Amino acid sequence: MRLVLATIVFAFLSQCFTHPCRADDPLPSWHDGPTKTAIVRFIERVTDEDSPNFVPEAERIATFDNDGCLWSEKPIYFQLVFAIDRVKELAPEHPEWKTRQPFKAVLEDDHEALAKSGMQGIAELVMATHTNMTTDEFAKTVESWLKTTRHPRFDRPYQELVFRPMLELLEYLRANGFKTYIVSGGGIEFLRVFAEEVYGIPPEQIIGSSIKTEFELRDGKPVIVRLPETDFINDKEGKPVGIHRHIGRRPIAAFGNSDGDLQMLQWTAAGAGPRFCLLVHHTDADREWAYDRDSHVGRLDKALDAANKNGWTIVDMKRDWKTIYPKPSGYAPY
Amino acid sequence: MRLVLATIVFAFLSQCFTHPCRADDPLPSWHDGPTKTAIVRFIERVTDEDSPNFVPEAERIATFDNDGCLWSEKPIYFQLVFAIDRVKELAPEHPEWKTRQPFKAVLEDDHEALAKSGMQGIAELVMATHTNMTTDEFAKTVESWLKTTRHPRFDRPYQELVFRPMLELLEYLRANGFKTYIVSGGGIEFLRVFAEEVYGIPPEQIIGSSIKTEFELRDGKPVIVRLPETDFINDKEGKPVGIHRHIGRRPIAAFGNSDGDLQMLQWTAAGAGPRFCLLVHHTDADREWAYDRDSHVGRLDKALDAANKNGWTIVDMKRDWKTIYPKPSGYAPY
Repeated sequence: MRLVLATIVFAFLSQCFTHPCRADDPLPSWHDGPTKTAIVRFIERVTDEDSPNFVPEAERIATFDNDGCLWSEKPIYFQLVFAIDRVKELAPEHPEWKTRQPFKAVLEDDHEALAKSGMQGIAELVMATHTNMTTDEFAKTVESWLKTTRHPRFDRPYQELVFRPMLELLEYLRANGFKTYIVSGGGIEFLRVFAEEVYGIPPEQIIGSSIKTEFELRDGKPVIVRLPETDFINDKEGKPVGIHRHIGRRPIAAFGNSDGDLQMLQWTAAGAGPRFCLLVHHTDADREWAYDRDSHVGRLDKALDAANKNGWTIVDMKRDWKTIYPKPSGYAPY
Repeated sequence: MRLVLATIVFAFLSQCFTHPCRADDPLPSWHDGPTKTAIVRFIERVTDEDSPNFVPEAERIATFDNDGCLWSEKPIYFQLVFAIDRVKELAPEHPEWKTRQPFKAVLEDDHEALAKSGMQGIAELVMATHTNMTTDEFAKTVESWLKTTRHPRFDRPYQELVFRPMLELLEYLRANGFKTYIVSGGGIEFLRVFAEEVYGIPPEQIIGSSIKTEFELRDGKPVIVRLPETDFINDKEGKPVGIHRHIGRRPIAAFGNSDGDLQMLQWTAAGAGPRFCLLVHHTDADREWAYDRDSHVGRLDKALDAANKNGWTIVDMKRDWKTIYPKPSGYAPY
């Protein structure tokens, strides 16, 4: 018994010596200051049964954007890297891609031509690489890609480029009876492959863009097949619609980082009772990236104005976060 | 303290005198027999950590059809009664309905003409009565209808025509770490109005048919508007698709009562590891209704053959259920 106690005390003390912390601090990677205080005060208010702002546990819904909010999104969305890698892998089966845009641009690493192809081009890449297979086959492809691919700047797997302060925030919310959801413009089935292990968020709490699927019996075995047709774009005006479709209840807290999250934050803020809206502002070019109004990926312009006007909380990444990413050994499931 | 204890003992004993029960019986409304035994054995197997059939809690997903499985569906689906009542209520604003089918049939209580209008007619009634309003407005309309309407045969609110044995089963599953879902051909937003209070199933665990919706700012206030356009039919082949869309994980147990549930049961049964599939067979014309292969509402034909072939569990309502409905005072939230 004494040995056990000594071990616990030693573990705790050594943790506090490596980076100073308070034992009761649920957000150790966040600097003390107004941002952290705003988060903690909100959670204390809605969980205090004696507070007029108390919210029953069933209604404690918190929604998080993914790209740029829970993990990085530069130089391009990680799911787009996946699509590009898949095009290169599948190219031998598609000789016609050598002369057809946007595939030609991908195969020749012609970033300018790829950028020119715009959203239409990206949609074509996604349809060509994400569909005409069963849902199980798609999940396996994503899983294997995540295992073997590394981010060019940080030389670590993409799922290790998640934000440690946000992981703490997710955990802190759940410890206080919140149900945490991802509400992403990214593909719902792409996210579901890693979200449970990386974020602790189960598949049924992922909301994302989707393509149509179809139930089929293949040799008597039921499968769900991914069709090359868009079903739903879970971005901008689509986010409140996706939230309502999946949850059927308005969130009381929402977290984003770009104009794609504006409507989710508006929808959340407009509910009755206490509300919390937060934007992650990328201000740290040294440790991550610095961008906002002029960025092609994750543009933060209208939503920044709305946050200032409505008093939403804004994370200044450089000022508010002690660390950005977990230690490389930390959260890598693969 | 003694008084408290005496009260508890008295409450327990009087319960056992009114209908004999065992203190540890999680399914007191079910007669002992092979059906009950099959349910209990399955739950014991998947929750026993020492069993080779143990299933981690996160994967204990159970899906339930609603109409005819959790509540009655005769003489017609209760949501169709709601649509008919709404047509009559809105008729003064729509003089054209007097001469236009299927509205004319509804207003003249012409059941034959209404039946003739078929699924297309029902869809028209639903579009005319369920759309062109905000999601909040729709929920209020359903709530008020449930409060004021009674079933013609049993003279009680529709939400008191839920099956008591199934309520016990839902509770039993949840007490064993299952997440319980409704997977219904009925409207997702219709179900969400009462499912939490009646079944203990929160809005985010309801999967149903849906119409398209749209996010809008009305005088600066965000609303979600219901459009007169079908989004998804969550029936037959649609059920596994709806399950995959919302849950992203295959159920290990599925409960239905008609051919509309066949694909959900096939999808569930085809997963690896222990699986449980059950059909409620309506065999009790005295206490509820008796119907199967020839019924227009809730036809049970192909699914019954599949159940017999695959050894799925079949509830014989007359033989297996001690009581059908809760006491009138019991589960009525309104």
